[in-house]
Amino acid sequence: MAKELKNLTKRSESYSAWYNELVVKADLAEQSAVRGCMVIKPYGYAIWEKMQSVLDSMFKATGHQNAYFPLLIPKSFLCREAEHVEGFAKECAVVTHYRLKNDPDGNGVVVDPEARLEEELIVRPTSETIIWNTYKNWINSYRDLPILCNQWANVMRWEMRTRMFLRTAEFLWQEGHTAHATREEAEEEVVKMINVYGDFAENYMAMPVVKGVKSANERFAGALDTYTIEALMQDGKALQSGTSHFLGQNFAKAFDVKFINRNNELEYVWATSWGVSTRLMGALIMTHSDDNGLVLPPKLAPIQVVIVPIYKNDEQLSLISEKVNPIVDELRHRGISVKYDDADNKRPGFKFADYELKGVPVRLAIGARDLENGTVEVMRRDTLEKETISIESIEDKIEKLLEDIQANIFKKAYDYRAEHTTTVDTYEEFKEKIEEGGFILAHWDGTVETEEKIKEETKATIRCIPLEGDTTPGVCMVTGKPSARRVIFARAY
Amino acid sequence: MAKELKNLTKRSESYSAWYNELVVKADLAEQSAVRGCMVIKPYGYAIWEKMQSVLDSMFKATGHQNAYFPLLIPKSFLCREAEHVEGFAKECAVVTHYRLKNDPDGNGVVVDPEARLEEELIVRPTSETIIWNTYKNWINSYRDLPILCNQWANVMRWEMRTRMFLRTAEFLWQEGHTAHATREEAEEEVVKMINVYGDFAENYMAMPVVKGVKSANERFAGALDTYTIEALMQDGKALQSGTSHFLGQNFAKAFDVKFINRNNELEYVWATSWGVSTRLMGALIMTHSDDNGLVLPPKLAPIQVVIVPIYKNDEQLSLISEKVNPIVDELRHRGISVKYDDADNKRPGFKFADYELKGVPVRLAIGARDLENGTVEVMRRDTLEKETISIESIEDKIEKLLEDIQANIFKKAYDYRAEHTTTVDTYEEFKEKIEEGGFILAHWDGTVETEEKIKEETKATIRCIPLEGDTTPGVCMVTGKPSARRVIFARAY
Repeated sequence: MAKELKNLTKRSESYSAWYNELVVKADLAEQSAVRGCMVIKPYGYAIWEKMQSVLDSMFKATGHQNAYFPLLIPKSFLCREAEHVEGFAKECAVVTHYRLKNDPDGNGVVVDPEARLEEELIVRPTSETIIWNTYKNWINSYRDLPILCNQWANVMRWEMRTRMFLRTAEFLWQEGHTAHATREEAEEEVVKMINVYGDFAENYMAMPVVKGVKSANERFAGALDTYTIEALMQDGKALQSGTSHFLGQNFAKAFDVKFINRNNELEYVWATSWGVSTRLMGALIMTHSDDNGLVLPPKLAPIQVVIVPIYKNDEQLSLISEKVNPIVDELRHRGISVKYDDADNKRPGFKFADYELKGVPVRLAIGARDLENGTVEVMRRDTLEKETISIESIEDKIEKLLEDIQANIFKKAYDYRAEHTTTVDTYEEFKEKIEEGGFILAHWDGTVETEEKIKEETKATIRCIPLEGDTTPGVCMVTGKPSARRVIFARAY
Repeated sequence: MAKELKNLTKRSESYSAWYNELVVKADLAEQSAVRGCMVIKPYGYAIWEKMQSVLDSMFKATGHQNAYFPLLIPKSFLCREAEHVEGFAKECAVVTHYRLKNDPDGNGVVVDPEARLEEELIVRPTSETIIWNTYKNWINSYRDLPILCNQWANVMRWEMRTRMFLRTAEFLWQEGHTAHATREEAEEEVVKMINVYGDFAENYMAMPVVKGVKSANERFAGALDTYTIEALMQDGKALQSGTSHFLGQNFAKAFDVKFINRNNELEYVWATSWGVSTRLMGALIMTHSDDNGLVLPPKLAPIQVVIVPIYKNDEQLSLISEKVNPIVDELRHRGISVKYDDADNKRPGFKFADYELKGVPVRLAIGARDLENGTVEVMRRDTLEKETISIESIEDKIEKLLEDIQANIFKKAYDYRAEHTTTVDTYEEFKEKIEEGGFILAHWDGTVETEEKIKEETKATIRCIPLEGDTTPGVCMVTGKPSARRVIFARAY
């Protein structure tokens, strides 16, 4: 039974089959009846809620407030910013009617042709346009700035190829939209928020990321600059995990949003936007999990500790419970989320396998002999190591162990990335290395042409121009022209 | 300036103008460019977040988990349940296409006729259909039950007449959807959740509500029974504030969701659904606010205490700040949200008016003379009473005052309702009293015909058959036929 429960394809056999199966078997999400849209199941949603809660605190600590803007955007708004419409019009859900009526032929309901909208509405793929149309009314003078709003929302992009969490037609995200009086202040905001994302990725998701700037080709449609955090998955592919855009005055110009500056002159407002989405769930899953199932960082695990009693009869169970209950109370008191699973309709082996699959960081098992000996069996999910230890001060040991696991899985992912980051000087070597996956640091001449040639020939893209690291100039591996510094290439999700 | 800031229409002049102006002037929400859809501004959203946070804890404490289901629902799903489609098809946003393309005539973008969906998708007006289509795959045996899911989401109903918060095309809400093995358990759930709503309304919103059951006419489309909480607004109109539906086996039958029960027989699953929405914001505003602006219950106020320094120069300000800072720290330490507004670009009078308008429950003002005397001026928003008191142990006094305000505004609303609840025995008297507004307790023969006649002739509807109160039988005021008990009539939002 326990084996059946898992029966996961191994990562080495097919990483993508492993991922798809894991998402379903660990009860994170499933496909819905609507093409490309998923159902996020309670266990998956509980992880997302933890992410939301941490991120929301970080946004508020950096001065942002939440607000809510309409789901539907007038078609004409999209067209106001030329690059923006180019980027988003190709893949959007269009509302054309506002009523159904009974089918005159008696087959259920049909669209009422008389209820056609004068102007079609688009289900938001992102909200710059509707928000800047709103900000226009909020801004008159520099005293009204900055505006620092964030929105938690659902968005739709009609992707042709979808994968749960990584690329879905509908997804959940947050989108920050800020308005500033000066270019400098907007640029600071963009960097501040990519740093918030980097902090969240590394210190909560335990996922090392490279912070950097996108090449022109990979920028957000309508941005002057896009900052990104890029992570490396276990199959050697990169995953763009969060972006922060410097929008310049593009949207202010598109929606005519001017303000009176400190010198009493009319000026267009400066803008940023930044977002992370349920894609982070995919990143989390792929960064840490193994052939036994999910591995969750303690800081984001809905259940951090599970305690499973091993007993033969009610009397044993009640003795075990007597021992366990105060431990549960003390752990909760310390803010640790713990589940005491004394359900008697599943055998311990089944429970062990299920909690392994679901990535619960620490599992305690306690039986009659443990009671006699004053011990408990502790299993840590990241290494699967089991140890029988004294139950004395178990709460302290668990607290310490959770910290260890958080640090250990970060280190593991960090080491993996270090081992899979290669510096390359020739295009020949690049073509060879890119087949092995991982990040490749190489010189590039800065042109779109070279970037596209590389993409065409190798399927690798420039993930980013890193903010940190070696900044020695060199020559482009393809054209031999001057290169300011090495950039990061990879094949990507 | 302070006067201009407010300049609210008085409630006695036009309650509806007062409401509309207040929503905008207090920075709660505004109309968007999309017909019937509003923008919820940061201050309004902060109140909604507080509501969400309390409700979410209450749902979790009663065993529910959050999940997320798709925004778009296949048209055919709506038709599966006959009454449900009747109730919702008339007013829904329909997605017919999934792509725009450049207008061949060069005018922006147009809907790409080649990207027509095979089956139209509806922006969810409520999610019973997509959720029961999902539950089908989750349920095999009684061991899989109950399923207790809640979803925080946006929904759309294409209302013709909209008013911010009270009736908007898009609104935010939560919808609980539960699945049970027995009728009794489902019925218990329905009552449990209307009690949760009642608890929230009375103990957090400080809004007295009558809990009751809807007449057949006013039931949710597809429900066997709808429970409701009904509140009375200051203009004498009723506001339905939350509903909990017993759906019987209707949706299980529509989506063929059967389970093997404890007797090893196949049976349809029993269902409930329950929801409250941003309409509660409208209820909150209308229950307590006055001609000076919002009055917020301390438990839901984003800012519970504001402190305004009164100073003539920087030296005075710094002395005041020195006194105030430890008070701010101590209040925060006690979990009280406090703002020290030492901004120097607005005069104290402007600040006073602004915080009054925004309903901040307690305002402290402190000037140079207060420093000398060891005093502080305290203003409570509910009564507008000002008092200069000793600053000693001010934190205790504030804590106590916040409790007083919470209790006082509940009592005020409770007394208002008591004064505006009338018992009536004849239809003549009913017609007279209904013009005065308020709840009317009257006997009704239980038929749809009589209910509709009353509605047509008086615009009053049966708000509910109360769960508590006088259950003496009598005769219908209209037909003279027997009546089991008095029910509550009112004109309603």
